[in-house]
Amino acid sequence: MSNFQIEAQNCANDINNALDEALSKEQFFEPYGAIPKHLLLAMRHGTLNGGKRLRPLLLRQTAAIFNVPHEQTIIAGMALEMVHCYSLIHDDLPAMDNDDLRRGQKTVHKEFDEATAILAGDNLLTLAFEILASPKDHKETELRLKLISELAKSAGACGMVGGQMLDLASENETLSLKEIDNIHAMKTGALIRASVRMGAIIGLASDRELIALTKYGELAGRAFQLADDILDETATDRQLGKTTGKDKKSGKATLVANIGVKESKVKLLEIIEQAKAALSLFGEKANSLRASVDYFGQRES
Amino acid sequence: MSNFQIEAQNCANDINNALDEALSKEQFFEPYGAIPKHLLLAMRHGTLNGGKRLRPLLLRQTAAIFNVPHEQTIIAGMALEMVHCYSLIHDDLPAMDNDDLRRGQKTVHKEFDEATAILAGDNLLTLAFEILASPKDHKETELRLKLISELAKSAGACGMVGGQMLDLASENETLSLKEIDNIHAMKTGALIRASVRMGAIIGLASDRELIALTKYGELAGRAFQLADDILDETATDRQLGKTTGKDKKSGKATLVANIGVKESKVKLLEIIEQAKAALSLFGEKANSLRASVDYFGQRES
Repeated sequence: MSNFQIEAQNCANDINNALDEALSKEQFFEPYGAIPKHLLLAMRHGTLNGGKRLRPLLLRQTAAIFNVPHEQTIIAGMALEMVHCYSLIHDDLPAMDNDDLRRGQKTVHKEFDEATAILAGDNLLTLAFEILASPKDHKETELRLKLISELAKSAGACGMVGGQMLDLASENETLSLKEIDNIHAMKTGALIRASVRMGAIIGLASDRELIALTKYGELAGRAFQLADDILDETATDRQLGKTTGKDKKSGKATLVANIGVKESKVKLLEIIEQAKAALSLFGEKANSLRASVDYFGQRES
Repeated sequence: MSNFQIEAQNCANDINNALDEALSKEQFFEPYGAIPKHLLLAMRHGTLNGGKRLRPLLLRQTAAIFNVPHEQTIIAGMALEMVHCYSLIHDDLPAMDNDDLRRGQKTVHKEFDEATAILAGDNLLTLAFEILASPKDHKETELRLKLISELAKSAGACGMVGGQMLDLASENETLSLKEIDNIHAMKTGALIRASVRMGAIIGLASDRELIALTKYGELAGRAFQLADDILDETATDRQLGKTTGKDKKSGKATLVANIGVKESKVKLLEIIEQAKAALSLFGEKANSLRASVDYFGQRES
């Protein structure tokens, strides 16, 4: 395994263990007793399903530039994954993208039912903010509030949720490349950008450092989405563990549909180089972040 | 109008104005530009629809015991309403309670569509935490974190969302009075309890004061839910602006179905007296809170 693969695997293990623990407690909250078991199982099904944990990885790699130990990025990483997984659970619903398959398993509403999927998503989102408010990883109150604010903004109406709304509205519409780019920046890019920025916040980055990392985060988000769209066009269902070719079928706006696979791959490599260039300020300390965005150009699932 | 009515009206006006402003901004978040208009309209439809704003009222009445001016309870009151309204939007969905009517108007998924209703709810929940993290009303960082934590816990799997899950699962099941009570305490009671506790947190209540107010909050929540169930049985659709008699039709567990309307009304008055008794510590300063819980016994819509 490459250094990148080892690092990614370690991060995934840490986050999986933390999520497993956070989602197995019998009681969260006095005086009302235990969480309904059915709901807990649905939340576990929607999160503990072999996700790559790339957002927590970007967060811990960014924090590591500032010598923050990995142990102090677990809560924030979990919160990012809870928000990411809630968005997948809701996006898969029949009223949205109507997907039966996710990471090779039944989606939450197929394994359970729609009501349970809606509530499991709602609760993962709520829980993300609950754990970010806790002092476990960070004693500094201002820092915790900054993390909450960053996550909420990126997940909200001008970020992830807004992007999903525009994406649904774009079905069978003809959009300009700029419009497509903006939808992607909101739907996928905002949370990836936030992952990097939350790492920078934990690392107490200077304004100049935050600007550079934000630029990297935006470009990494674009690279990630473009790689995803290329895979949707070229990979098989089995490779991805989800239904492929769906974008085309549903008439969804993607860059690949507009400029073709070959040109998209050239574009992807360009964006990756730009992302790495944005890290020049940090020298070798940012090598992990460089490896992550390189991975976006090579991944096969 | 009674003093209570004037106070309730003033509170509703303040919260409506604040929500109107918060949900009319063209931009929330750099660098992604404007919130999709469709989503904004759906969020407005689901919040600015004549709600009574009882949760912000309980919050400001509690804070007023500690001489906190009303202006410093607006953000927390708005956050409570955003969470309350998101829960109504999601609960009304076809996969959940399947309701077409809410406060005399079409529900969000009927006026727009299901995907938009899901996303509008998701975003209201997200926005609640975003505004609570902002320093506008409260400079003290610890206080803001306490409010976030309180709201998240009450809205989560052992509170509101968990209660809705159990409520759905209870359809056509025979439950004990204790089980019914617990579902109500979670589904409705948790957020009402949190409204009072958030007021106490803003007021920097002592432990002893917080315990007394928590007790009041729990009893007020029970009174509110019981009054709601009685009205569901006795009022007309027109009075309530929503579909009545639904609980019976869907075989849902309510106390009224178990012990009848007459005995439920006796029980309601008992709970109201207990709630008022819990406030003895505060003397006349808690008269507003007493009037609120009295109102639960008299309301007709």
